[in-house]
Amino acid sequence: MSDILERLSVILEERKAADPESSYVAKLYAKGLDAILKKIGEEATETVMAAKDGVPEKIVYEVADLWFHTLVLLAQQGLGPEQVLAELDRRFGLSGLDEKTRRVQ
Amino acid sequence: MSDILERLSVILEERKAADPESSYVAKLYAKGLDAILKKIGEEATETVMAAKDGVPEKIVYEVADLWFHTLVLLAQQGLGPEQVLAELDRRFGLSGLDEKTRRVQ
Amino acid sequence: MSDILERLSVILEERKAADPESSYVAKLYAKGLDAILKKIGEEATETVMAAKDGVPEKIVYEVADLWFHTLVLLAQQGLGPEQVLAELDRRFGLSGLDEKTRRVQ
Amino acid sequence: MSDILERLSVILEERKAADPESSYVAKLYAKGLDAILKKIGEEATETVMAAKDGVPEKIVYEVADLWFHTLVLLAQQGLGPEQVLAELDRRFGLSGLDEKTRRVQ
Repeated sequence: MSDILERLSVILEERKAADPESSYVAKLYAKGLDAILKKIGEEATETVMAAKDGVPEKIVYEVADLWFHTLVLLAQQGLGPEQVLAELDRRFGLSGLDEKTRRVQ
Repeated sequence: MSDILERLSVILEERKAADPESSYVAKLYAKGLDAILKKIGEEATETVMAAKDGVPEKIVYEVADLWFHTLVLLAQQGLGPEQVLAELDRRFGLSGLDEKTRRVQ
Repeated sequence: MSDILERLSVILEERKAADPESSYVAKLYAKGLDAILKKIGEEATETVMAAKDGVPEKIVYEVADLWFHTLVLLAQQGLGPEQVLAELDRRFGLSGLDEKTRRVQ
Repeated sequence: MSDILERLSVILEERKAADPESSYVAKLYAKGLDAILKKIGEEATETVMAAKDGVPEKIVYEVADLWFHTLVLLAQQGLGPEQVLAELDRRFGLSGLDEKTRRVQ
C-alpha cells in the first residue's frame, strides 16, 4: 500500500511532459506555482471544514486532496515524497520517543 | 522508507495514552481538535511561504510539518494514513493515466 | 470613504433576496456556508502569495477580496461590519496605547 | 464608528517606531513579513472554525483578528485601509448592482 506515494511521484513526473489539456495535473503545472499553492490553501481549508463536520469519509477525502497537491508542489519543484518521508524519519525514526526535543520549532 | 507513515501512525496512537506534558503530540491531543486544525492551517500557510521563497529545504520541512499534523488529525479521529493512501490509490492506482476523469471534483 | 463597509453591508443584505443567478454574491449565498468559508481560505492564501510577491496593487486587491468574503460571511450569519469595527474599537479605541494588555490572546 | 480603521491605521504607523518589546504589534513588525503572513493564515483558519461552530461572538472576534492582521500587513508594506476601501468602492460603489460584471476574477 505505502508505495502509492512513490508511484504517484512517478506519475506526477511523467505528467510534466504531457499536453496541458491532457490531464488535471498537466494543466496545473501549466498554470504554474501560484495555482498549485492556491490549491494547497484551498484543500487545507477543506480539511479543516471536513474535520469540523466530523465525517470520516470527508476527512480522508480532503486529506488525500491536500497530500496530492503537496505532491504536485514537490514534483514541480524537483522534489519528491521520499525527502518528506526522510525528514519525518529524521524526526521520529530512531526511537519515536523524543520528537519533542528533536522538533525544531 | 515509505513505511515511515505506518510507524508514525503507531507512535501517534501510543501518544493518546501519554501524559500531556510528556510530548508535543500528547499536549496537542489534550488541547483538542481545534488546536490540531489550527496547526494544519498554519503549516499550509508556511508551506505556501516556503514555496514562494523557493528554498527546497524549507519546502520539504514545511510539507513534513503539514503531513505530520494531518497524521495527528487522522489519529485523533480514529483514522490513519492507510485510508488516505487507499483513497489516493483508488484515484491513481490502476493506470495512472486518467486521474482527471476519476477525480470527483 | 470609510462608509463603504456599511454600504457594502446593505448591498450584501439585499442580495439575500436575489435570484442566485443574478449576481456572484447571490450565487455564493445559495451554495451556502462552506462555499463562503472556502473562499475565505482561498483569499487568505492569495493575500499571503501577493505579499510574498511584494506587489502593492496585488496586496490591496487580495486584501479587498479577503475583506469582501468576510463581509459575505458576516451577512450570511446575520452579522455586520459594525460588530467587527466595535470589537476593534473595544481593543484599541480608548487610548491606542495598550492593545497588548487588552488583547485576549 | 467606521473611522476606527483609519485610527487603527494611524496607531499601526506609530508602532513602527516603537521598541519591539513595547507592544504586540511592534514585536510583530520586528519579526518581519513572514510572521505577519503566518498570523493571517492562522486567523483565516480560526475564522473558518468559528463559523463552523456557529457562535456569533467567536465569528466577530476572529474576523476582527483577521482584519487586524491584514491592517498590520498593509502598514508594514506602506499601504493602508483607505486603499482597500477604495478598491471595494471601485467594485461596488457606484450602483451596487453590477458587482458581478465589474469583478475581475
